[in-house]
Amino acid sequence: MIYLDNAATTWPKPERTITSMADCIRNSGANPGRGGHKMSLAAGRLIYNARELLAKLFNVDNPSRVIFTGNATESLNLVLKGILKPGSHVITSSMEHNAVARPLHFLKSQGIEVSEVECSPAGFMDPVDVEKSIRKNTTAIVVLHASNVNGAIMPVESLGEIASKHGIKFVLDAAQTAGLLDIDVKKLRVDALAFTGHKGLYGPQGTGGLFIREGLEIMPLLQGGTGSKSESLDQPVDFPDRFESGTPNTPGIVGLAEGVRVITEKGLEEIRKHENILLRRFLDGLEQIKQIQVYGPCNPKLQVPVVSINVKDQDSSEIAFILDKVFDIASRSGLHCSPQAHKTIGTLNQGTVRFSFSMYNTIDDVDKTLHALEEIIAEMH
Amino acid sequence: MIYLDNAATTWPKPERTITSMADCIRNSGANPGRGGHKMSLAAGRLIYNARELLAKLFNVDNPSRVIFTGNATESLNLVLKGILKPGSHVITSSMEHNAVARPLHFLKSQGIEVSEVECSPAGFMDPVDVEKSIRKNTTAIVVLHASNVNGAIMPVESLGEIASKHGIKFVLDAAQTAGLLDIDVKKLRVDALAFTGHKGLYGPQGTGGLFIREGLEIMPLLQGGTGSKSESLDQPVDFPDRFESGTPNTPGIVGLAEGVRVITEKGLEEIRKHENILLRRFLDGLEQIKQIQVYGPCNPKLQVPVVSINVKDQDSSEIAFILDKVFDIASRSGLHCSPQAHKTIGTLNQGTVRFSFSMYNTIDDVDKTLHALEEIIAEMH
Repeated sequence: MIYLDNAATTWPKPERTITSMADCIRNSGANPGRGGHKMSLAAGRLIYNARELLAKLFNVDNPSRVIFTGNATESLNLVLKGILKPGSHVITSSMEHNAVARPLHFLKSQGIEVSEVECSPAGFMDPVDVEKSIRKNTTAIVVLHASNVNGAIMPVESLGEIASKHGIKFVLDAAQTAGLLDIDVKKLRVDALAFTGHKGLYGPQGTGGLFIREGLEIMPLLQGGTGSKSESLDQPVDFPDRFESGTPNTPGIVGLAEGVRVITEKGLEEIRKHENILLRRFLDGLEQIKQIQVYGPCNPKLQVPVVSINVKDQDSSEIAFILDKVFDIASRSGLHCSPQAHKTIGTLNQGTVRFSFSMYNTIDDVDKTLHALEEIIAEMH
Repeated sequence: MIYLDNAATTWPKPERTITSMADCIRNSGANPGRGGHKMSLAAGRLIYNARELLAKLFNVDNPSRVIFTGNATESLNLVLKGILKPGSHVITSSMEHNAVARPLHFLKSQGIEVSEVECSPAGFMDPVDVEKSIRKNTTAIVVLHASNVNGAIMPVESLGEIASKHGIKFVLDAAQTAGLLDIDVKKLRVDALAFTGHKGLYGPQGTGGLFIREGLEIMPLLQGGTGSKSESLDQPVDFPDRFESGTPNTPGIVGLAEGVRVITEKGLEEIRKHENILLRRFLDGLEQIKQIQVYGPCNPKLQVPVVSINVKDQDSSEIAFILDKVFDIASRSGLHCSPQAHKTIGTLNQGTVRFSFSMYNTIDDVDKTLHALEEIIAEMH
């Protein structure tokens, strides 16, 4: 199978991700932070190691400010519901995934005001529009780092600057970029960074996290046992326990750490260079097929390796179905949980066929996919 | 190592739990419910199979009413915050884990009234006291099925009857009992059942779930992408999507399903019979050591295989430390995230040393532990 659905989840995972999880369950399978015996302490150390690796990756000084969640959606719900109060105003983009758009839509019903800044048809947000949208009660800017629909990278440095200048919070959804683009929370002036473990970090599904800048007050989403300050019915105030109630996903977090080790050893720049070669070749090939429309930047410098297309007015799911059935190529059709983005790029009705690369894809994968699209189009005549 | 910390998490896990997770990541590692290609559909089927297995285990008719979460704490937060509104009254016990006690403590600050029914020093709740506590605005009874501190089993059949008779909801925390006691949500008249995957169900850490009875309205805790009704900014109303935003923990859920298969094939009754033999032998042995005080029912019929003790007035963590260091026996000391329970049994200051068995423990484990305790006491003289 040629797997080009890496924006949904990367596959395959490094073999080390998988074996580290099995080793963890076999040899360090106790409950971390909830006992003083050797195996519980060993499990606790594994989780702390994972925190350190992620802190280093994002240039976070204090690993305790990196908390683990089940996925980026949980991280985003936590930070949005934890910092926005009735009367708050938040600025977002028209390219957001439902992981941001749906919580904000819900929060509107709780008295939170939301401004959705319209992006260009290629998916770009203009920082000038963002600055114009700032009001007296603006609490935060929340945007995705790169679109999961067409790969467009947002002007995050400018957004961080604007937020900082106006004394508002900058919340970044790095679901599509963690492990691929250089994310330095200091340089980007990010107050909260939501990430998922199972995409560019090559960890397993069921992992994600949130970096919370020192001094940022967030209400926890959950209360419960933390293995610390057990005598108190109040949720502890210490990080990371304040936001990590209940037994954590120890094997998942260990697998995530191993994924981070793999990409760090390989080098993010190397990975991006490889994926950009594939992306360039794919975009060039698509340009030669006149029945295909590509939505988005069409420029590896301005996007991550996620490409949305349509074949004339063909239903996107029909094309994805044939690619899978006849050519054994896994793509993804439809709206990709991002109706606002599809409205922005003009594909709300048709959806798109999305192709997304990982470090394990090859030039051969690209060429075979281009060839398959040509064959499908030829058959249509 | 003799591992007797199974109430925190069972260890070892069945080898099948581990290999099923690795197989899932290697061969069905796509994103379930978020694509139409073969591997995405395969992942979706694996999750549905897990739902079916758990539904069958708890006698739930419609598997879609079993939703997956990260742990029992998340399940309990979801149901408590999802059904209790300012002005609601809820009845709970004085034996609760912080997974119930802390969310309820938080909810008090939101205008929810909480009655904590005092349990006996052995940890039992009297249904008569519960019925007496019912008010006009009582919305729910929420209790744990069995104590994680001393194993005491709550009178859940009576509680279900009382709740049903008075038209209030019955929420059961089955963290310590799922996979060990027979849980029939119809017979017990349970409206919501929270369970964890990594204890008696022999799945991996990072898994849990919630059964929600047909007709019970619960507000979701999270909004986000569900792979369904993507065109709408409203969270879908359909089960299970309404409560499962973001990419699920597919390998974890697959491991949980395999754990359920293992215990179902072995038979819950067989497992309980084995663990009760260990429990009986351990209790009998403890009775012979006059320096040891046992807290709890001291009767396998009235408890799950969780035993809390103290050695005279010795600090519980000191005893657990020696057991680990000198005898390579993993127990757990302190408050076990349950301050209310320790207040009830009279051990809030000293804590207890807790021993808990799984289906993999042996008579030899019990005997060696009793012997170790005798040696520790002999050394103390």
